[in-house]
Amino acid sequence: MRPFRKLERYDAALNKVLERVDLLDDVIISVEKSLGMVTAEDVLSKIDIPPWDISAVDGYAVKSDDVVLASYDTPVKLKVVGSSMAGKPFRGAVSKGKAVKIATGAVIPKGADTVVMAEYTEEKNGELFVYTQSPPGKNISKRGRVLRTGETVIEKGRFISPVDYGLMLQAGVESVRVRRRPRILIFSIGDELVDSASDLRPGYTVETNRRIIGRILSRYGIVDDLGILPDRVDEIAKAVTADGYDLSISFSGTSVGERDLVRQVVEESGEVVVHGVSQKPGKPLLAGVIGGRLHLGLPGFPVSTLMCFSQFVIPVLYKMLGVRDEWPRYRLRVTLAESVACEPGVRCYVRVKIRDGEAYPLTVAGSDMLTSVSSADGILIVETDVEGYAKGEMIEVIPIDEFLGLR
Amino acid sequence: MRPFRKLERYDAALNKVLERVDLLDDVIISVEKSLGMVTAEDVLSKIDIPPWDISAVDGYAVKSDDVVLASYDTPVKLKVVGSSMAGKPFRGAVSKGKAVKIATGAVIPKGADTVVMAEYTEEKNGELFVYTQSPPGKNISKRGRVLRTGETVIEKGRFISPVDYGLMLQAGVESVRVRRRPRILIFSIGDELVDSASDLRPGYTVETNRRIIGRILSRYGIVDDLGILPDRVDEIAKAVTADGYDLSISFSGTSVGERDLVRQVVEESGEVVVHGVSQKPGKPLLAGVIGGRLHLGLPGFPVSTLMCFSQFVIPVLYKMLGVRDEWPRYRLRVTLAESVACEPGVRCYVRVKIRDGEAYPLTVAGSDMLTSVSSADGILIVETDVEGYAKGEMIEVIPIDEFLGLR
Repeated sequence: MRPFRKLERYDAALNKVLERVDLLDDVIISVEKSLGMVTAEDVLSKIDIPPWDISAVDGYAVKSDDVVLASYDTPVKLKVVGSSMAGKPFRGAVSKGKAVKIATGAVIPKGADTVVMAEYTEEKNGELFVYTQSPPGKNISKRGRVLRTGETVIEKGRFISPVDYGLMLQAGVESVRVRRRPRILIFSIGDELVDSASDLRPGYTVETNRRIIGRILSRYGIVDDLGILPDRVDEIAKAVTADGYDLSISFSGTSVGERDLVRQVVEESGEVVVHGVSQKPGKPLLAGVIGGRLHLGLPGFPVSTLMCFSQFVIPVLYKMLGVRDEWPRYRLRVTLAESVACEPGVRCYVRVKIRDGEAYPLTVAGSDMLTSVSSADGILIVETDVEGYAKGEMIEVIPIDEFLGLR
Repeated sequence: MRPFRKLERYDAALNKVLERVDLLDDVIISVEKSLGMVTAEDVLSKIDIPPWDISAVDGYAVKSDDVVLASYDTPVKLKVVGSSMAGKPFRGAVSKGKAVKIATGAVIPKGADTVVMAEYTEEKNGELFVYTQSPPGKNISKRGRVLRTGETVIEKGRFISPVDYGLMLQAGVESVRVRRRPRILIFSIGDELVDSASDLRPGYTVETNRRIIGRILSRYGIVDDLGILPDRVDEIAKAVTADGYDLSISFSGTSVGERDLVRQVVEESGEVVVHGVSQKPGKPLLAGVIGGRLHLGLPGFPVSTLMCFSQFVIPVLYKMLGVRDEWPRYRLRVTLAESVACEPGVRCYVRVKIRDGEAYPLTVAGSDMLTSVSSADGILIVETDVEGYAKGEMIEVIPIDEFLGLR
């Protein structure tokens, strides 16, 4: 059994990996199918929103000059000459001494330059009493107020949210240029692995890494799951060289033991980019390039694999997709309830629970303990050159869902 | 046009609404289909994890007494009598002076009480030199260390995350009792509404509220979209009384104008629970009960409707689903860059951008401006009894995706 030749610093390792990642092609798709995809261009409004000057309230469209002296004690009397309802605009014009009844959203008739809210008026037999003045532009939502034709609806490099989707519909955008979804191949390796606890025999392990991460990955791309491969070089080689994928990810088989075959396959078929990262948990991370495609080998211990997923796979996906959104989006500033130590030169991922603004490191937290992730509220990253934090220090915790890319 | 008789305080209005919400039935479903659903019981492990005492490293299973004097200068010599590989346990027992080669995850053979890491040994022709002592239990992952049979995998009332899903697979849980997904009917009301900008005519509006919120709702339940209904009492009545739904939501038609028909329908077919809330934006919220079912009428302005969605619909869904997870999960503590004012007695939702730890309130932010939500980083809630915040005050902002229930 040979040790890792050299553990890379996390930041150096990540850079080496990202250097081998290309931006995916862009494609044009219907706005209806765009949710969760990443824009590949600034999306511009096709129309003015609103497309006309419209009323922001229910009331009466008038000339502001006509009501300049109106007050509660000295109402101004105007003649109602018609109505402008949403969908049924007033066809004429408002002239001096005249008013047009108007609904929220309806088009401001020609000649009117202000809208008096219904609450400040009284209409009797076609006569309108106006009890307040109303300066020009009051209660009018000007054409293009929300967005003008050609203004940016969503910037390039953003995940399209439901609100963005609605805004595109408002803006008359019917299709949008986005990055195509990456095709990702995932598989686990190990004669001792089974997919179900009902198949357990002594020394076997239920493999769940691939399925946890497969579920998360499906939010970003199209995932094909090969299942569990045996410890056989030919089968692994077939998987890492399978055509049609932008990224392949294997689980288990990357630490340095006799039966760890991923490195061997990558060496034979391509090039090892990184093997062994100075981080804890997650040391055995392997990154290789085979036929121009990146392969990431994540370790078998559940916590290790999730840390590697967060800190390597998510940045890879962000680069492929050209994402400009910040990640993680949130960091919680909390007080550390107990001191935390991390070996010098190692980047540590400390699972913490947060209670009343205090972060409690989980003490029983081996890298085999998936419970230490499922019960954690977040992750405190102790950077490579930091040796720890003292009790009472203010620290930043990444919420666990955010850390795992669950958006 | 009649004014709102009385605006309810937000907290009183929400309580009135939640009083009319029942917990949904529970159903048993396959773990494979459980992601994103809410547990209706504490989920218990069916097995011990790990199911046997296993090795946490690659190395040699030995008796700790045999190596108690081992050191780099005075190695202890043992005889290797076999191997315990993952999936292929050693059938015999380790007796005094003997060692069994063992792989990570493999079962600890009888007789051994410790594992020496391979790095601290040397094997030559069946003889093992051990260069370190190893106390009892060292490098052994005891049966049930992660979870014991009957221990809680996920508590009742939690959204099932991908990690929870994996943990259930590890724990031999094949099916799980969850709340059934709520069936939600949504529709918009208004002769002046269209679904596409290409159908716009003067005074018409592209209706996007229903579709934005429909997309968010589909993360929580099964959504049926009736589309846009005309301003006709009979059509609206048919929708709010349609069978088979746990909740119905209409968009537009709730403010107090001649053509606002939802209140009329609710009064005729059932009972108005709340109409008009002292909040900004979002005042015209309507809640009614028809035939035992809650109907929520959200206002037409896009920002108003999203604020009502967040502050009323999400709490309703959480109660239906019996969610015990906290919401919002994150609040960001930031400094306010400009003062914010809110009328006394009104609860205000201020959209803010966050830059370098400072929150900038969006100044051009009418309730018609969906851009003020799409460009916001979060929402500052100014509670009913608070009149505002001064520049420089430390405040809490709810990230916009969290505010909108995007989990």
